[in-house]
Amino acid sequence: MRYLALIALIAAAPAAAPPGAADIVRDAPAAAWRAVAPESLMLIDSPRGTVAIELAPDFAPAHVAAIRALVRAGRFDGGAVVRVQDNYVVQFAAKEVPPPATPPAELPAEYEAPVAGQFTPLGYRDAYASAAGYKRGWPVARDKGREWLVHCYAMIGVGREAPPSTGDGSELYAVSGHAPRHLDRNITLVGRVVEGFAGWTSLPRGTEALGFYKDPSQRTPLTRVRLAADVPDAPRFEVMDTASPTFRAYVEARANRRESFFLRPAGGVDLCNAPVPVRRVTSAR
Amino acid sequence: MRYLALIALIAAAPAAAPPGAADIVRDAPAAAWRAVAPESLMLIDSPRGTVAIELAPDFAPAHVAAIRALVRAGRFDGGAVVRVQDNYVVQFAAKEVPPPATPPAELPAEYEAPVAGQFTPLGYRDAYASAAGYKRGWPVARDKGREWLVHCYAMIGVGREAPPSTGDGSELYAVSGHAPRHLDRNITLVGRVVEGFAGWTSLPRGTEALGFYKDPSQRTPLTRVRLAADVPDAPRFEVMDTASPTFRAYVEARANRRESFFLRPAGGVDLCNAPVPVRRVTSAR
Repeated sequence: MRYLALIALIAAAPAAAPPGAADIVRDAPAAAWRAVAPESLMLIDSPRGTVAIELAPDFAPAHVAAIRALVRAGRFDGGAVVRVQDNYVVQFAAKEVPPPATPPAELPAEYEAPVAGQFTPLGYRDAYASAAGYKRGWPVARDKGREWLVHCYAMIGVGREAPPSTGDGSELYAVSGHAPRHLDRNITLVGRVVEGFAGWTSLPRGTEALGFYKDPSQRTPLTRVRLAADVPDAPRFEVMDTASPTFRAYVEARANRRESFFLRPAGGVDLCNAPVPVRRVTSAR
Repeated sequence: MRYLALIALIAAAPAAAPPGAADIVRDAPAAAWRAVAPESLMLIDSPRGTVAIELAPDFAPAHVAAIRALVRAGRFDGGAVVRVQDNYVVQFAAKEVPPPATPPAELPAEYEAPVAGQFTPLGYRDAYASAAGYKRGWPVARDKGREWLVHCYAMIGVGREAPPSTGDGSELYAVSGHAPRHLDRNITLVGRVVEGFAGWTSLPRGTEALGFYKDPSQRTPLTRVRLAADVPDAPRFEVMDTASPTFRAYVEARANRRESFFLRPAGGVDLCNAPVPVRRVTSAR
């Protein structure tokens, strides 16, 4: 087998070359990583493996609280992947229950917030906002004194009905295509997939409008959904500290590919093409 | 089934609202479309259905000529999808043959060209170039007097070895994730998928480095590969004329979503989030 291993996303750099993005991530010091809190790690078992999602309570506290409550009430157990639309989203839902006598109060729209706190600018143009960058390990855009999480690949959003609905957290989607940034500030983003996404992105696309499955038998069941905090020996993950010098070097290496494959480094990168590195912690206890 | 049909890529607009992008495409006059030349339509049959690819001889004449010759020599028949890397590419190859006694001459690098001819500016910022837009139905970026095809979702590139190789066209990849624009001007782009891509994007991801399949039995065989010009009753496709007023209206509708789902239109769009509309021609002969 000698198929061309080119267009390498991660390619080893020759010894003399400056380090590439993959080298920088591999050699990052411990101080350049932060742990994913077990309380914010959602583990979704299905016949397609386990999808691990980091929740973002700093950005969407009300929706994340609602999702945690649904998980702990067992509402996602027996749910399903109900929609797979090519180059767009994989959508999954808690199991359906009869509507409550008293509907839950509407959650606040957590679509954006006033600019606040540390921010690492991407340093390159953004097509949608006056500034793009990273905050506490998340992709963020800023404009006119407001900031918001961005719809990059693998980000998790909350399905909702027409406004003023903001969704109740029982139906979520994961971005599975080119960043649908037009959804920014129109939907609450609550997290991102940190492991196992390929089990879902390779699902058959739904053939109904918007990628919904025609037949319920085509849905992928969610067999068990828990928070890592409630799971003995749960996997642990770390996210790169986006305020660290290591992360800055990583972004520069993504913007200026130094691997020998490249003739012409781009000299720039868009926010969703410089995803925040995540790693699984393998402890030698 | 009442799963939320939100985050609609294409949603019906209320009667009073201005037309959305989907309406504009649906109602586009005949003059807003151009036919895909049968000589430039590559049809790839596999157990995952037929993938139809429009080739781009205006941008990569030498590589497209090489690909046409390989197709007509039957070299892709018996080839396979050899690599599927999540959020990156689906790569496929002609069947392997013994190296010729005389290796073929290296093809010219068709990575970029001097700016020339009609160009429809996107009208919004681009993260990678001073201008982005469309030319003859293709996504193009421009900078410093040069222009080039762009790595948007579904674009087709030519696999190559390390420079100075430009590839011989026997190994091609289709972009299947967030636009890997860092590959622009480093690889020859030769076309785009116009139909059937979901059969490939839903393939299992390869588990070897770069998404290559571990075992040849995991590859998806290409059972028959032809040019539409050589196929009786081949399907026909049309691409929207990117110089037309209709296309301009489409881009504006993508940048400013008017569907009732949206609270806040983005007021902008990136090149790869405003893909050129393509339609299958269903003639009532």
